[in-house]
Amino acid sequence: MDAGGETAAPATGAETLGSLGETAVLGRIFPRLPDAASALLGPGDDAAVVAAPDGRFVVTTDTLVHGPDFRLAWSSAFQLGWKAAATNLADVAAMGARPTALVVALVAPASTPAVWLEQLADGLREACAALAPGCGVVGGDLSVSDTLTIAVTAFGELEGRAPVLRSRARPGDLVAVCGELGLAGEGIALLFARAVDDAGAPDAARAAALRPAFDRVLDAQLAPAPPIASGVAAALAGATAMLDVSDGLALDARRIAEASGVAVDLDAAAVGSRMALTGGEDHALLATFPAGAALPSGFRVIGRVRAGAPAVLVDGRAFDARGGWDPYADWDGRVG
Amino acid sequence: MDAGGETAAPATGAETLGSLGETAVLGRIFPRLPDAASALLGPGDDAAVVAAPDGRFVVTTDTLVHGPDFRLAWSSAFQLGWKAAATNLADVAAMGARPTALVVALVAPASTPAVWLEQLADGLREACAALAPGCGVVGGDLSVSDTLTIAVTAFGELEGRAPVLRSRARPGDLVAVCGELGLAGEGIALLFARAVDDAGAPDAARAAALRPAFDRVLDAQLAPAPPIASGVAAALAGATAMLDVSDGLALDARRIAEASGVAVDLDAAAVGSRMALTGGEDHALLATFPAGAALPSGFRVIGRVRAGAPAVLVDGRAFDARGGWDPYADWDGRVG
Repeated sequence: MDAGGETAAPATGAETLGSLGETAVLGRIFPRLPDAASALLGPGDDAAVVAAPDGRFVVTTDTLVHGPDFRLAWSSAFQLGWKAAATNLADVAAMGARPTALVVALVAPASTPAVWLEQLADGLREACAALAPGCGVVGGDLSVSDTLTIAVTAFGELEGRAPVLRSRARPGDLVAVCGELGLAGEGIALLFARAVDDAGAPDAARAAALRPAFDRVLDAQLAPAPPIASGVAAALAGATAMLDVSDGLALDARRIAEASGVAVDLDAAAVGSRMALTGGEDHALLATFPAGAALPSGFRVIGRVRAGAPAVLVDGRAFDARGGWDPYADWDGRVG
Repeated sequence: MDAGGETAAPATGAETLGSLGETAVLGRIFPRLPDAASALLGPGDDAAVVAAPDGRFVVTTDTLVHGPDFRLAWSSAFQLGWKAAATNLADVAAMGARPTALVVALVAPASTPAVWLEQLADGLREACAALAPGCGVVGGDLSVSDTLTIAVTAFGELEGRAPVLRSRARPGDLVAVCGELGLAGEGIALLFARAVDDAGAPDAARAAALRPAFDRVLDAQLAPAPPIASGVAAALAGATAMLDVSDGLALDARRIAEASGVAVDLDAAAVGSRMALTGGEDHALLATFPAGAALPSGFRVIGRVRAGAPAVLVDGRAFDARGGWDPYADWDGRVG
């Protein structure tokens, strides 16, 4: 069902959510959304029915709001659909689960072009195809509001395994990460520094001018590609704790430290930069493994779990992201 | 965990989402939310884990947006929390499923008082307790935006039964409804007629002045109490098709007619009024049963399924909600 163009006439730019109405717009969007292999009953009734073969399902929800979470001058519809899927898939992966399905509650201004909504659906579809094949959209809701808002709820299956919590890291465990750190933070810093107009407002032309030189950091920010399949791989390799690095490595490492009652000691050289330590929206997977575990492909060791009061250390010294000792002061100054 | 006052200091009116920050506000809200009996892992990690004993789960999502879906001058926070839960629970019930859990994505202005958010949580909790005991909140997300938006995703279990679809009504079936028809439509018509200021804007004082004389229709609109448990009862009684009446009986009956390839012939006297036929937001359950089935408690017969082109008939004559023959013209004129 991913070839929407074959089953619905292409939208023209003049058609909007308001002029077409919800039913007609849904008719445009649904053929573009990905099927879920786990769907026993897909969209179209009061509710969908999804398979949960081991008698449990994993569920998480995360919302993207225009303004705080994205700016239309910088993000295309395709990128927003992609990011809304990817960030939720990463939360499922961080439990050691395989993503199975999404539902999408979209709230958009009546003036939103139908073609824009189609491109958002394309982004959802392509993110599922690239990051979590078999995962699809089983339901949704479309409403009208002045503020564009995309609320995704994502599901996964644990395939008989225990979920990987934040609270089971043990002294002596290795701390490892899979995925990029700091690139998304570099991307947003770059956009705020160089893709705003003279009044400081986000500017599409200036953002476009940053490509292709800054493709890597802009893509990490605008259309991240978290290592979704590595969540299951980490669980199979015996990960003791895991989470999705969404608010910066230091802050998310602190969440493991506090939930597990341990200190997390990071290796500054292995982490690599101040931005890798504190930049947000990486959606990398941060996990702890028993010493001697064979780490799954893609994971690299960046520290060690130590006994002690819950804290994040860098090279053995207490690290406070809001001031305090800063191992990367020079690098930080370069990106503002 | 439903006695939030015992585990968190009461919020004062001066504290807002913006002044307290997301983490502190979540600390206020979570103790007030209902536990889900089906939660294997509740809020606090990247995702929750919910039991699905028969290897499937039902899922639906519906959003309330300030402006199109509610007005703060008319709805209290408690009522909004209640309605957001109730409307989603009704969609689960309409599949013949028992509601198990909710996730809530709340987007609110930074100026929103913390106590308002607490009252919203109270409404979610009390709706679950009253309408679907055992159903609770397993996760959520809190974001900031100018437009207050509440996106709820609800889950249910089918307990080994087939879901009751819209598409299996058969000629000869009885058409029956459980729950009130038309009251919610009367409520919104009353509010727009008599609870607006001289410029036509929603007015809280004028809405308050309508109570207690109009409690019944205002409550049906602002804090509906759909017959959630009757969804399972209908499935057990052999319902062939069912849906949640959200857009008015005539329009939702048409959905069954079109999905099933039948005509639905409604009895004008049994339906009772024009508003019962066309008013929205009833969240009653409309179902079809084989002739001779023992209807579950609360269901009343309002028509019959007939062979023929998909259509809604009233007393055997084609009914078109947008004009055409109107069996209740006199009554309609009375509420405007």
